[in-house]
Amino acid sequence: MAKVFHLEQIKAVLKKIDPVQEIEKGFVAYSRGEVVVPPIGEMIFEDPPGDTHIKYGYIKKDDYFVIKIASGFLENSKTGLPSGSGMMLLFSQKTGYPEAVLFDEGYLTDVRTAAAGAVAAKYLAPKQVERIGIFGAGIQGRMQLEYLKTVTPCREVVAWGLNREELAAYQKDAAALGFSVQTTLEAAEVAAACNLIVTCTPATAPLLKADQIRKGTHITAMGSDTALKQELDAGILEKADRVVADSISQVMERGESFKAMQAGAIKKEDLLELGNVIIDRSLQRASEDEITVADLTGVAVQDIQITKAVYKKLVTFNQKF
Amino acid sequence: MAKVFHLEQIKAVLKKIDPVQEIEKGFVAYSRGEVVVPPIGEMIFEDPPGDTHIKYGYIKKDDYFVIKIASGFLENSKTGLPSGSGMMLLFSQKTGYPEAVLFDEGYLTDVRTAAAGAVAAKYLAPKQVERIGIFGAGIQGRMQLEYLKTVTPCREVVAWGLNREELAAYQKDAAALGFSVQTTLEAAEVAAACNLIVTCTPATAPLLKADQIRKGTHITAMGSDTALKQELDAGILEKADRVVADSISQVMERGESFKAMQAGAIKKEDLLELGNVIIDRSLQRASEDEITVADLTGVAVQDIQITKAVYKKLVTFNQKF
Repeated sequence: MAKVFHLEQIKAVLKKIDPVQEIEKGFVAYSRGEVVVPPIGEMIFEDPPGDTHIKYGYIKKDDYFVIKIASGFLENSKTGLPSGSGMMLLFSQKTGYPEAVLFDEGYLTDVRTAAAGAVAAKYLAPKQVERIGIFGAGIQGRMQLEYLKTVTPCREVVAWGLNREELAAYQKDAAALGFSVQTTLEAAEVAAACNLIVTCTPATAPLLKADQIRKGTHITAMGSDTALKQELDAGILEKADRVVADSISQVMERGESFKAMQAGAIKKEDLLELGNVIIDRSLQRASEDEITVADLTGVAVQDIQITKAVYKKLVTFNQKF
Repeated sequence: MAKVFHLEQIKAVLKKIDPVQEIEKGFVAYSRGEVVVPPIGEMIFEDPPGDTHIKYGYIKKDDYFVIKIASGFLENSKTGLPSGSGMMLLFSQKTGYPEAVLFDEGYLTDVRTAAAGAVAAKYLAPKQVERIGIFGAGIQGRMQLEYLKTVTPCREVVAWGLNREELAAYQKDAAALGFSVQTTLEAAEVAAACNLIVTCTPATAPLLKADQIRKGTHITAMGSDTALKQELDAGILEKADRVVADSISQVMERGESFKAMQAGAIKKEDLLELGNVIIDRSLQRASEDEITVADLTGVAVQDIQITKAVYKKLVTFNQKF
């Protein structure tokens, strides 16, 4: 009989696993060609407007496969409800039987996205991170710090947001995580002060330009996951010593690399893939002066990995207590 | 919070709804172009061999959308487990939120398939059904009788199967449903005795030929749901006065109509669609002498309809008791 878990249970066991390590393993399996990810299923609704996506796949010879269902209905906010929702389904790769339903309400997607940022920083950030720059004072801007904590000792942040109110709230929440945050409405100030930058906004025009970026900076761009969104000017990717995509095939159609290729600033041959960078020391940052960019668009193997890890811990946890 | 229901609960409320009526409404909505059915998602596994399909869709302006996940892992039988499994997920079309998970283990697919047979018989069978011929002594062969009961008073059956043992078991189960069953291993005997025939086998070569079919017979062919399966010789569809598909677009690629079109026995223009036949009296059987064929390949709107109906009843039922 399949087991059913709710958000509070999921949050409780997340503290007992290391999502960064799980996601890292996922990227390695992905770049090794061990992951099967069929085309995404999609339903678009008109009245009210909304969309539902079905992402699914598995690691070959693994015990499980995972189906994620995620929806976004913007008008939910009219009645004070979150626009996003979602669930993770885990099945046995031996029998096809459902093993678990995780009603995570989209939370595990946030976690696996933030954990990917930590993986990118782990392998690409300079050794001495002076200050962390965060673009976007939303959930992901907070969660990035939560997982960056595990890969860098730096606790100084400069945060960019749309207004003072959201930045004040961000500052408070980041302080609770142990970070000292300066805030700004000027993107250039972030670039001038920070050598590890994470962009997590829904921007559709560049927030940062090439001449603003300091030598030795690593930028993880994770807001842009469609063909329309863009956070970095193509010149940044052109200038960068390394551009690392989570999935080279995926960034042919979306994300910062897509935009930079469209602009003629970089070529497909210039791209590295994160899983390969993790495996091969020679593909990682070679000096403290390099500028590096990680272009993260979100890959189903992240959903697979986080769901498996949480499930395994939920089962142990619920047996014990 | 999404509600979770298990097979016993689902079976209990199925007795309180009319699946035939629900499926009938679904076919009408489908033929009216009111149903959105995106391409099927698929995962194929090798070791052990298995497949998982994700079927999903919705009726426009309806309250819900439905995602069905169904798997078949043949080697489960080695350990005495059913090879098929499945679940139905129901979501709000207003918020995108999951409303219910129905762990039906594939049962609702059997029900909606059998109910479609009853819908076809209701609109296409002759007024006087002398005997019902059933090809295939499996679950679907049993369930067809369960729902045909609601649309014809005939309780005489001639059943064809692969061997005497399975037919003896079938005879016993059908008797419990109120049917008197003769059994045979000769397909021609079924055709000679029956004027309402339902084929529900996994055959990949015709079981019946045109010259065996009596005047006035209606045949519902529901076993063939891929491009490889076939239960009726193309000559039967050529000879038939009406060939009615559950989905004309779907039978372009699978089912009896596909095979008959490949053989040049019929053309796309010869096909009627079940939802249109239900709406339009002039498309239904015009005399007791006509030969009619219903080619049922299974449409996602059936999953949508049965899931909604069961869910609504489950909610009422669980509030009451």
